[in-house]
Amino acid sequence: MFETALARAAAEIDIRLREALAPLGDQPVIAAMRHALTGGKRLRGFLVLESAALFDVARDQALQAAAAVESMHAYSLVHDDLPCMDDDDLRRGQPAVHVKWDEATAVLAGDALQALAFELLAAPECSPDPVRRLALVAALARAAGARGMVLGQALDIAAETSPAPLSLKEITALQAGKTGALIRWSAEAGARLAGADPAPLGAYAEALGLAFQIADDILDVEGDEARAGKRVGKDAGAGKATFVSLLGLEGARARARALADEAAAALAPYGEKAQCLREAARFAIARDR
Amino acid sequence: MFETALARAAAEIDIRLREALAPLGDQPVIAAMRHALTGGKRLRGFLVLESAALFDVARDQALQAAAAVESMHAYSLVHDDLPCMDDDDLRRGQPAVHVKWDEATAVLAGDALQALAFELLAAPECSPDPVRRLALVAALARAAGARGMVLGQALDIAAETSPAPLSLKEITALQAGKTGALIRWSAEAGARLAGADPAPLGAYAEALGLAFQIADDILDVEGDEARAGKRVGKDAGAGKATFVSLLGLEGARARARALADEAAAALAPYGEKAQCLREAARFAIARDR
Repeated sequence: MFETALARAAAEIDIRLREALAPLGDQPVIAAMRHALTGGKRLRGFLVLESAALFDVARDQALQAAAAVESMHAYSLVHDDLPCMDDDDLRRGQPAVHVKWDEATAVLAGDALQALAFELLAAPECSPDPVRRLALVAALARAAGARGMVLGQALDIAAETSPAPLSLKEITALQAGKTGALIRWSAEAGARLAGADPAPLGAYAEALGLAFQIADDILDVEGDEARAGKRVGKDAGAGKATFVSLLGLEGARARARALADEAAAALAPYGEKAQCLREAARFAIARDR
Repeated sequence: MFETALARAAAEIDIRLREALAPLGDQPVIAAMRHALTGGKRLRGFLVLESAALFDVARDQALQAAAAVESMHAYSLVHDDLPCMDDDDLRRGQPAVHVKWDEATAVLAGDALQALAFELLAAPECSPDPVRRLALVAALARAAGARGMVLGQALDIAAETSPAPLSLKEITALQAGKTGALIRWSAEAGARLAGADPAPLGAYAEALGLAFQIADDILDVEGDEARAGKRVGKDAGAGKATFVSLLGLEGARARARALADEAAAALAPYGEKAQCLREAARFAIARDR
């Protein structure tokens, strides 16, 4: 059920993103935006669609918000891959934007993808109610900025050159910003589109995001380059603290399972309708890429 | 009158920006954001305040929108100065962010400043009316993104390596994106805050923005490094087309004067109240930095 729903979500989000970029022409920076938006699991967009479904929000509206968060996520990947940041040449099995084009194009394509995220949310297609669109915009600006995703990435880069490895508390704070903030926004989006209380979905997302990140650290140790489509073993090689280095492989697996249970429990108010989101929490810790 | 109003606007905008950054702590990326937001003429913020005054919008609300556009402008300068872009070490007479910190911090500080711009606009301080806040957000996302500022910068970078110098039409399109889009947003913001028609202010801003850019090209030829606080003569040295290379120094001066007249004429609907904006058009072509 979950995997079918995720694949369907990804296909629909891809169409919406292509539509959004169609009027922008074919300048290299636009081509780079298209490249950056291609592929990916669309987990964030999926969370938007599934949380919206809990409240019977029209799928067409939810797709607009899903496309917005995937645009924001894609920008963060393009900038994170830059030589001055994580210096990754491969992304989603394809050359990173700065490799296929150049660094300037990668900076600009990322910048434009961030602006596009806000443009998509502010458009009437997202919700007929401007108050709800504005709530999504305000929350996304906070999640993306200096208290959220950017702060997480800054802490991550600072950790590279820090003499002491991060503590569990520090690495949890780092991940809450770097990946947690957008995942939380995505899960809460359905409630915001419906004008409902986003708190239970926020609790779900907080546990899910951390579980997802711990699973990433486990994959980093266990995975192989072909399956993951990106360089692996890099964090461990650099002597950087990860959930695995701090908790051990078995400890990390146990913690991820506990968090997945916690995430599932937070969905209790939504009953059967939340089955797909419950499965997502299982998937987060059982995936192989 | 104009210069006093500009200085007052700059001081008030600086305070609002400091307030906005105060809760963010003192991580290097936040310190870099503060650095990037320091100094500058605040012309864009001034246009917000003055256009808002035409409609008797509360100054406190206009200041929020003014701070937002200055945050967006500051992000664009931080990214434009990067080695992979215009490679400028000095900005506003101070070391550029990537010089004082490093490239990763400059990319991230710019990213967070863009998010901050949207966060400031989405906040209730900007307008009690969410529909008006959303209109400002939607317009700023368009102005900043792949059809506006980013496209202009991308065209500018492409021009560096283009075998043929740009035509007058191409350089006008480039500048309409690179600097014109934010200037236009700023001048229209007052009307949007008041729920009024932004068209006359849009016409004013279009002429003003181009006049400002032509004046920049003239300064680039005539200025000296100490007065401008940034490298000068660079564009001409690189054999890049500018308004001066295309129109000649006298031709460029005449075109700038005609545009300043056009800008002033567009303000006719607002009568005496628009005196300060009229003077801004004169200032744009008479300044020495």
